[in-house]
Amino acid sequence: MTDALQQGRALLAGMNPTLEQALSDRYDAAVPDMAETLVEWAYGRHYARDGLDLKTRQLCTIAALTALGGHTAPQLKVNIAHTRAAGASEREILEVIWQMAVYGGMPAAINGLNAALEVFSAPEDA
Amino acid sequence: MTDALQQGRALLAGMNPTLEQALSDRYDAAVPDMAETLVEWAYGRHYARDGLDLKTRQLCTIAALTALGGHTAPQLKVNIAHTRAAGASEREILEVIWQMAVYGGMPAAINGLNAALEVFSAPEDA
Amino acid sequence: MTDALQQGRALLAGMNPTLEQALSDRYDAAVPDMAETLVEWAYGRHYARDGLDLKTRQLCTIAALTALGGHTAPQLKVNIAHTRAAGASEREILEVIWQMAVYGGMPAAINGLNAALEVFSAPEDA
Amino acid sequence: MTDALQQGRALLAGMNPTLEQALSDRYDAAVPDMAETLVEWAYGRHYARDGLDLKTRQLCTIAALTALGGHTAPQLKVNIAHTRAAGASEREILEVIWQMAVYGGMPAAINGLNAALEVFSAPEDA
Amino acid sequence: MTDALQQGRALLAGMNPTLEQALSDRYDAAVPDMAETLVEWAYGRHYARDGLDLKTRQLCTIAALTALGGHTAPQLKVNIAHTRAAGASEREILEVIWQMAVYGGMPAAINGLNAALEVFSAPEDA
Amino acid sequence: MTDALQQGRALLAGMNPTLEQALSDRYDAAVPDMAETLVEWAYGRHYARDGLDLKTRQLCTIAALTALGGHTAPQLKVNIAHTRAAGASEREILEVIWQMAVYGGMPAAINGLNAALEVFSAPEDA
Repeated sequence: MTDALQQGRALLAGMNPTLEQALSDRYDAAVPDMAETLVEWAYGRHYARDGLDLKTRQLCTIAALTALGGHTAPQLKVNIAHTRAAGASEREILEVIWQMAVYGGMPAAINGLNAALEVFSAPEDA
Repeated sequence: MTDALQQGRALLAGMNPTLEQALSDRYDAAVPDMAETLVEWAYGRHYARDGLDLKTRQLCTIAALTALGGHTAPQLKVNIAHTRAAGASEREILEVIWQMAVYGGMPAAINGLNAALEVFSAPEDA
Repeated sequence: MTDALQQGRALLAGMNPTLEQALSDRYDAAVPDMAETLVEWAYGRHYARDGLDLKTRQLCTIAALTALGGHTAPQLKVNIAHTRAAGASEREILEVIWQMAVYGGMPAAINGLNAALEVFSAPEDA
Repeated sequence: MTDALQQGRALLAGMNPTLEQALSDRYDAAVPDMAETLVEWAYGRHYARDGLDLKTRQLCTIAALTALGGHTAPQLKVNIAHTRAAGASEREILEVIWQMAVYGGMPAAINGLNAALEVFSAPEDA
Repeated sequence: MTDALQQGRALLAGMNPTLEQALSDRYDAAVPDMAETLVEWAYGRHYARDGLDLKTRQLCTIAALTALGGHTAPQLKVNIAHTRAAGASEREILEVIWQMAVYGGMPAAINGLNAALEVFSAPEDA
Repeated sequence: MTDALQQGRALLAGMNPTLEQALSDRYDAAVPDMAETLVEWAYGRHYARDGLDLKTRQLCTIAALTALGGHTAPQLKVNIAHTRAAGASEREILEVIWQMAVYGGMPAAINGLNAALEVFSAPEDA
């Protein structure tokens, strides 16, 4: 097991412990090693890095996914949950999304707000 | 003067006091009220809002501008200066940009790093 | 109330009189002042400007939303209604969308046509 | 009939013989000549060109549609069928989509994989 | 010669009579038939269509190119000249570009304004 | 050293043996481990995979970078060299780029052709 893969798994243990298995169940038969590649790259090689705290990293991901447009809504929803797990409030997440109206345009911001409101009003979030 | 315009100007007084005049000199003859519209909207209606600290807002802007691709390099450079003024370190800014490789792709991240290295190595930054 | 907000409201009175309230009901508890900010910025600071007629402004919005890709379909549908209210025919709207195949690519144009056909075939549009 | 239109029709005869009629039924009343324009341009002027084999052309289309983001999912699904008809295996198509994580970002790749898995698991594909 | 190619050439005769030759000189050795394909598709199959006047078509192109971001600056400059030839004023063009701040974000609008100011201040435009 | 990093280095040894050192010299002081992360992820975890030949992988990268727009020109140029090294002809590369007019729009295709012509006419390519 590579160092980065190990670090990615250690980080996910606290944030989303079932993610790798879920990715593996869904994708690995079609795309061998997809799940471990994603964990190594995104969590081991990025979120586990020094130099910036996890909460800020996650809020920056919210910003990027919102600015990129509504087609990233599924990933935005997963990352809203991760950002809450990293200590951000609902309000902080909504503020980041709304600010993206300046950079990604109004449709991107509104699509992002809709995704967030859906996550925050879901029963499991109560 | 509107409240939002006033709040935007108050915020810029500390961050970039010559920005509105520079925008006005460059754009207002062609596009009447461009400068005050931008200050009211971006700074008064977004950066001056409650609910998220200015440093995190600026790092989220770095994230979005990087993910949107290299054609936003001029705005990325201005916002790197604003983000430094809001208290972020060079390292924090670079970490945000590099993380965008996961969401905006490798070319977007590399173009963002190039813009940042140019800003950080400029004489006035020394 | 700011001048721009007042002008935006005056414009919407003719075009879509329930929009601000609908936005406020949906978003303002989560994102304070979202509705009035949107009205001030988009309608007061842009659509209410001199220098270009409203019908052409609306057709240009159709062009942009189509070229940006199918994830803006909800906003495209709202703006198709606004563009009809500003005096454009269904044919003019469809022509703008189809022309976007040259600039945004074929998938963007086809997704835009699908959104327009859905609006035009809805019962309330008969 | 133009040469390019003729060549486009000849190519589609083998790949997707009902496409032009389906497009015509859906779009030509609203946008005159839409179907023949699409066939002339995309199939006559591009896919029928010399200089690159059809299978590689189709795999490159898969790459582009994936990198452009999830809002092109309908076109991606149609082109996955065309790419299979041009001789590519399911594995080759999945490899192209997954590789796009490097250039279009992880959300684009995952949305692309989801579209492909949906196509490959549909009953008619069995 | 196809009908669409003929119609595209007729339209360009008034708007930009040297465009096809310039494209042919630059691209046709590398990409056979590139120039006539572009004229047939963009001018014959789109700008020459009925249902919308040429000036509005061109302003919609300005909108789309601005919203797509600063990397389309070369095409934006060519189309600003075409839009002037189709009867639009400098002010109308600038208004379209600035309005795109709502849909494509502030960086896209500012990059568009910069391209327009460059065109309008060039000696040949005096 | 991870397996993926080792495989990425082995692949680059034949294609672009100085790339990792060049990336390390330029970026690693600012962004620790940037060079090895890129080699591990892009070359070890993607280009070195089974299931698709390297030449087709590279042509798909050309497709994506073109469709994403002109701001990826620096990465497009590097990958045109890699695609030549993987056995593709100049003509095949140009055909992929031109085909992207259908999916990414005409400006994206023209910007891509310009990047390719610049690479192919450079002295070191003679």
